This record gives sequence, C-alpha cells and structure tokens, in this order.
Amino acid sequence: MEIGEPDFSAAPLVVEAGVRALRAGDTTYTSSLGLPALREAIARHYQDHLGKNVPASRIAVTSGASGALLLAIALYAEPGRDILVPDPGYPGYRHLVRLLEAQPRALPVAAEHAFQPTAGDVDAAWGRQTAGLVLGSPSNPGGTLIPEDSLRDIAGLIERRGGVLIVDEIYQNLVYDSPPTTAFGLPGETILVNSFSKYFCMTGWRLGWAVLPEERMPLFERLAQHLFICPPTPSQYAALAAFDPESLAIFEKRRIEFGLRRDFLVASLRGLGFGIPAEPNGAFYVYADCSAFGLDSSTFCMRLLDEEAVAATPGLDFGDQGTKHWVRFSYTRPLSELEEGVERTKKFVEKLR
Amino acid sequence: MEIGEPDFSAAPLVVEAGVRALRAGDTTYTSSLGLPALREAIARHYQDHLGKNVPASRIAVTSGASGALLLAIALYAEPGRDILVPDPGYPGYRHLVRLLEAQPRALPVAAEHAFQPTAGDVDAAWGRQTAGLVLGSPSNPGGTLIPEDSLRDIAGLIERRGGVLIVDEIYQNLVYDSPPTTAFGLPGETILVNSFSKYFCMTGWRLGWAVLPEERMPLFERLAQHLFICPPTPSQYAALAAFDPESLAIFEKRRIEFGLRRDFLVASLRGLGFGIPAEPNGAFYVYADCSAFGLDSSTFCMRLLDEEAVAATPGLDFGDQGTKHWVRFSYTRPLSELEEGVERTKKFVEKLR
Repeated sequence: MEIGEPDFSAAPLVVEAGVRALRAGDTTYTSSLGLPALREAIARHYQDHLGKNVPASRIAVTSGASGALLLAIALYAEPGRDILVPDPGYPGYRHLVRLLEAQPRALPVAAEHAFQPTAGDVDAAWGRQTAGLVLGSPSNPGGTLIPEDSLRDIAGLIERRGGVLIVDEIYQNLVYDSPPTTAFGLPGETILVNSFSKYFCMTGWRLGWAVLPEERMPLFERLAQHLFICPPTPSQYAALAAFDPESLAIFEKRRIEFGLRRDFLVASLRGLGFGIPAEPNGAFYVYADCSAFGLDSSTFCMRLLDEEAVAATPGLDFGDQGTKHWVRFSYTRPLSELEEGVERTKKFVEKLR
Repeated sequence: MEIGEPDFSAAPLVVEAGVRALRAGDTTYTSSLGLPALREAIARHYQDHLGKNVPASRIAVTSGASGALLLAIALYAEPGRDILVPDPGYPGYRHLVRLLEAQPRALPVAAEHAFQPTAGDVDAAWGRQTAGLVLGSPSNPGGTLIPEDSLRDIAGLIERRGGVLIVDEIYQNLVYDSPPTTAFGLPGETILVNSFSKYFCMTGWRLGWAVLPEERMPLFERLAQHLFICPPTPSQYAALAAFDPESLAIFEKRRIEFGLRRDFLVASLRGLGFGIPAEPNGAFYVYADCSAFGLDSSTFCMRLLDEEAVAATPGLDFGDQGTKHWVRFSYTRPLSELEEGVERTKKFVEKLR
C-alpha cells in the first residue's frame, strides 16, 4: 500500500492504438508541444467532461506530469526567488524548485483545512521574493480537495501579488464524492498540470499535459525542445484512444472500484485507531495519524514492513510539518489485498498496545 | 536536409518487442534507472562491440540523451559555476547549463581542429569557477571525431582541475571511416551520454542512457526519480531487442547507407563551392562554409527554403563562433532526395553569383 501507481493498466483501445502506431512507424519526433490531434482531444475532454472551453493552443503535451511540472516551474524559478509548496505535499514540488535554484518555501497545511492552504495561509506566507504557489487538488498525500471558493480567493490574491498559481490536477478524475473540477478559468497567471498516469492508468507510458497562459507557450515550447525534444510518440498515439467512450467507461468502472476501496480503508484504519480527521475525497491515498500507537511514523512504517510485510509511506517523505506522526496508505491494490493488509496492520498495532 | 532524425524507423524485432510489452501490460513504472535487463544488455553491448567492460551498475537508462544530459549537468551545475561547451556545438548543452543556473562558457572550436577542442583550448578556457566540459564526438554540427589522444589529454587535464568531462556519444556507432569508440575508461570524473535515437533509429521512443562514476549513481537516481519517475517503459522493453544480431545487421546496413550519402553530399557541396575543411567522419551532418556565396548563413538558409524549398540549418543555431558563415546539412533523407536537394541548391547558388 505504498506506491502511487494504479493496479490497472491501459484500456484495450489504448493498447491497440499504441500497437498500430508502433507497426506503422508512427514513432518519429513530434512537435515539442505534442501531436496536434492529441492537444485537440484533450481540449474536447475539457469541454465534454469538465464544461470548460480550453483552447488546444494553450495545451502542451508533456513527458508525464513530472515533465509538465519541471517545465512549468522552470518558467518562474530563479535564484533569489522562492516558490510556496504545501507541507505535507508531493515531494517533487520542492525538489524541482530546488533543482532550478529557487527556494522551495514550505507552506504548512493542516488537517483542519483538509491539508489545503487557505487564502490567509498564502497571504501570510507570501514574501517579497515569492514567485508563486504550487498545490495539488486532489492532494498527495492527503487525498483532499481544495474548496472552489478558497482556490478562487487564492488565485485572486496571487494575481494581486503578481505571482503564478500552479495547480497539479493529476488526480482530477479520481474523485468519489463530487464531480471532477478544474481550476481552469481562475483569475491571474495559472498553470494546470495533468497526466495520463493515474485515471487513465498509463504510468509507464510517461505522458501528461499542461495548460498555460497563451503568452507562456513560446517559452514553454523552447524549454520542452531542449529538455525533452518531445513526449514519447507511441504513447501520444495511444492516448488518442483514451477519450473514446469505450475507454472512458472502463476508467469510470475503475473509479467506482477505487471509491469502494477508499470507503473500506478509511473505515478499517479508523477502526484500528488511526486518526483520519480530513476525509479523503480523491486520489488513492489515505493519510492517517498514527500517534495513538506511540511510534514515530518512520519507525512505524519500517517495523510494519519488517514484521508484517506491509508497505506504507512515512510522512517524512512529504515534508516536515508534523509529518512524524502520519502515514500514507495507498489503495492501489485490489480489495482482497487491502483486507489482508489491514488484517496484518491490525496484528502489528495490537502488539504495540 | 535540416532535422537530425534518421529517415529509418525501429528494427522489426524492436517493434514486435514493443507490441508484446503493450499487450502484456508491461507498461508500469520501472526503476528510475531503468529495467535491470536493459542495463545489462547495454553493458553487454559495450563488451561485445566496443571491447569495454562497463558494469551495468554504472549504466542509467534515461528519457533520451536529453534526459541523460539534463541529469548529468544537474549533478554539477550550480549558480556561480560555469561549464564549458563547444562553439559551434549542440545548442542543448548551453541551454541545459543555463536552465540549471550555471553559466555556459563558449569554448571556440575551429575547423582546423575538426571542430573539437584541444587540451590547450580547454586549459586556456578553464576558469576558477569552471565545473566541467561537455563535448560531443562525433560532433553536431561538425560530424567530426575528437582524436583519442587529444581526448585523453583533456580528461587528464580535467582530472587535475577536479572537474567533470561529459562526453556525448549519441552518434557513437554512426562513423564511416573508423570503428566506433567510447571514452569509457578515461582518467578522472567522466560521464558518457548515449541514445537509442540515432544509430538504433528510435527517435520518438525517447530512450537513452548515461554511464556514470559508481559514486554518482545514488544522486543521479534520486534526481531521475523526481524529474522523470522512469524512462518510458514500452520503449525499454522494445530496446531489449535492439541488440539482437538481426537488428544490428539492419543498423549496420543503414550505417553503410549513411556513409554513401555522406560521400555524395560532401563531394557535391564542395563542387558547388561550399568549404568543408573538416572531413565529417560521423553523425549525419555536413557543416559547410557558405562564405563564397556572399550571404550570411541565416539569410542563405531562409532564401534557400523560400526560393527552392530546401531546408538546411544556419550556423547561428550552434553558437556565435564564426557561425554566420556556416550551414549544417543533414543527410537524413534517401540519396534520391539528397540529389534533388543538391540540384536545387545548385540552382540557388548560381543565382547568387
């Protein structure tokens, strides 16, 4: 229950579109921004499923969400500037900022606010050299959504400060209690990051995308050219089939399955004595407080692995903010295995009492 | 005759290995350093074809040579440091150094020295803040090789200065007048960069590799994890078949074909009045001096494209060092098209006289 990778693989139509591309020799470099047909398909997806009119000219296909984040952060990171990153949050954010020689600045987010920043938090943390904020919704490790009005307030604040808001929507469609949403259309300079890895179950294919302000596209394209040349071509042709109704029906079935696992895991972990104050509504993570068991979370996870062969991720990976008492459980395994995992975790925590 | 992309695609066994991987669902994340089997296969390739014993533990599979260069440069680039890059040279070198907030420092290389630096050049250019040198052999745009003893002298010099030598061997096997070589085994801190894109004709598959000092592997792996997660998985499975004798036989036939094209293009361009003082022995480029025609190379290329629909790359793309008079021609098209291209170029230059 450790890795953030679905136990499902690509939809059959996607696989067969990939096979056709390989056999047809559709494996040459594409434009650095991706196949025009795929950018159009992503635009239609925003229109059809999220009700937003996102022009294809503002969509860049990337080498995974990692590639999108790297390029997006590269547009704004400069020595002497800092970029706010949620703590706890996806560790890639701070490492990419640091790699590009800006300073990642931890923005503590609390369970009381669903591990998401409020406009007040952002206002208080924003410094003279702050260039922007990166946040994920649904979040990792929290699995939590930022309320729409809160995100709008943050976007407005950042617009007034002249910064950039980067919203990582990699888990956009993996939501269980409300329809999926997008930050597209917020005021100010906003970049959205997304991926075919999670909902579309195409992890190793390394394909994602970004939505940018029109005027950032030329620089983003030049950077993409030098860092990546282009996203993997067979993956791009394959992904064209990801939006086919037959494929989407499969992804929806899997989303429902993820929702059932979430229900099971949250209830079971609470039953064992874990604290889960912030309801996880999305992604495939439960972020749970293990204080009740008297071990810091790194020791907890290491012993759980050693003694019961159950893998979970210690909070330490996600920042410093109280993370010593938190553990991330992924529900990227079938229910039967989650049941087994919970059973073993139960055995382990009973020894600790 | 502009783009550096072979007009051949992957070998049939490679395509079918890719197809099998897609259909088997071998499309999940791999280790950030790549499939162990592929690292072993690359190690065997060094042993069998280059006579060098490169341990698989020092090989990292990457998202193209671009990914390898980015990660390699990231290990050494820091604000305040500089890294030497050949001028003219592959533009990615300087852009990656700049992105990572170190200073790219142009190292002028002259046609008299086959567009390669000498140890004297490196010695003269090395500054107090210099962290290393990146060079390509065969080079782009020159298509030239660095003499082995010269490279050894440079490696020794850089070792004494405590820097790193990064050798881009992306065109390693595309040599026409001598057997392929590798810089592996030189003294000092050396990183080699390579790719499946050129000789193996797998451009859009986005797969390359790096060979690193053993002690740099852990940091390289951590960076790769955050920047790329892993190289594209289907491409990795497919590439396992690239070293099959049947595949290698195809690549060798193509190499011979590239050699014939080189012969034709060098002789033809010289016949038209271009200066080609440095014999291109590798890659698939001819770097030619167009001074005789009285136009700077950017104007030359733009007019050649406009008036005769022939695309070539102006020297400007590769640096500042006298590049205004140089044009890069790629021979990545069949001979019949090269003949047509030369015919049209002839028509164009005759108008200029």
